[in-house]
Amino acid sequence: MEIRTPGRGFSNVTQQVQAVVGRSGAQAALCTVFIQHTSASLVIQENADPNVLVDLGNWMGELAPESRPWIHDDEGPDDMPAHARSAVTKTSETIPVVAGRLALGTWQGLYVWEHRDSPHTRRLVVHVA
Amino acid sequence: MEIRTPGRGFSNVTQQVQAVVGRSGAQAALCTVFIQHTSASLVIQENADPNVLVDLGNWMGELAPESRPWIHDDEGPDDMPAHARSAVTKTSETIPVVAGRLALGTWQGLYVWEHRDSPHTRRLVVHVA
Amino acid sequence: MEIRTPGRGFSNVTQQVQAVVGRSGAQAALCTVFIQHTSASLVIQENADPNVLVDLGNWMGELAPESRPWIHDDEGPDDMPAHARSAVTKTSETIPVVAGRLALGTWQGLYVWEHRDSPHTRRLVVHVA
Repeated sequence: MEIRTPGRGFSNVTQQVQAVVGRSGAQAALCTVFIQHTSASLVIQENADPNVLVDLGNWMGELAPESRPWIHDDEGPDDMPAHARSAVTKTSETIPVVAGRLALGTWQGLYVWEHRDSPHTRRLVVHVA
Repeated sequence: MEIRTPGRGFSNVTQQVQAVVGRSGAQAALCTVFIQHTSASLVIQENADPNVLVDLGNWMGELAPESRPWIHDDEGPDDMPAHARSAVTKTSETIPVVAGRLALGTWQGLYVWEHRDSPHTRRLVVHVA
Repeated sequence: MEIRTPGRGFSNVTQQVQAVVGRSGAQAALCTVFIQHTSASLVIQENADPNVLVDLGNWMGELAPESRPWIHDDEGPDDMPAHARSAVTKTSETIPVVAGRLALGTWQGLYVWEHRDSPHTRRLVVHVA
């Protein structure tokens, strides 16, 4: 599964992952989503007020700022902060499947969190069993 | 599975999850625990000295403080910090089952980490297979 | 599986985990790696430029510094920072297996992240199914 991100920020992939679960025919199972990158990650967060994601992005930007004197900057000032932000968020998320659907809470959505400034194509592996 | 939390802090759910594993009859398996919320999370931490959890709570309170100017505050000043603290801890934990028991290390316990100030009822989904 | 760490830093265990996957004979599966400790953790990060890991270690050292007035210090000043650093990284990582191999991205490696100053023997449980 490939996702085109618009640069720093969040892409809601809940529907696309649910579609994979649906095609699998699984009723009671586990769905694992794995992102094959170290400068973008996964997070399950609130899907109601978009300001939650704005706050999250700003806060994480302060936690791992570009202004810190990073050694590794091969791909620019947003390179190493992206690795740091990935390290404290998720490379994989595992969600139970109940009655053929992702057993997410009412307010939960699954997001790809792009940590680089520019748009990227990100590959996800979805496993249902 | 439902857990009543006493407000900000940690609830040890290791015994309750082990009971689910026991009832499943599984000997060699995986146990996945998933929390259906974005302002409470899961963490595996030391179960010996309770001061470890006090320190963890205080440290996380400094990392994502209420005093930061968050945009999203629909449910009060502890609303958005709870989302931020959840984003850098776990929505799910996966623990191997060996000989019918959770293969935790000697000092490991599984905790629900409540990030809101007031008591909440939190729903967990436990999957053993 | 046991790993001897050299003190604070990263030990690449990708090859050893791939060897377990190979011996299992599994072609399409999930591999879950679980670390039985609360002062060392797991992380999937870039395996190309070693400075990424240097930066990550230094940044995490600033996020949870020894100089903070921690209550719990039974095993010295590096004791509680190690628990804090573990709490925001991973106790388990789940990686899909495709065609008998860990489906990691080109630049991804799986590391044990030792958070204590001195060398330790760390136990991992690897589950393939």
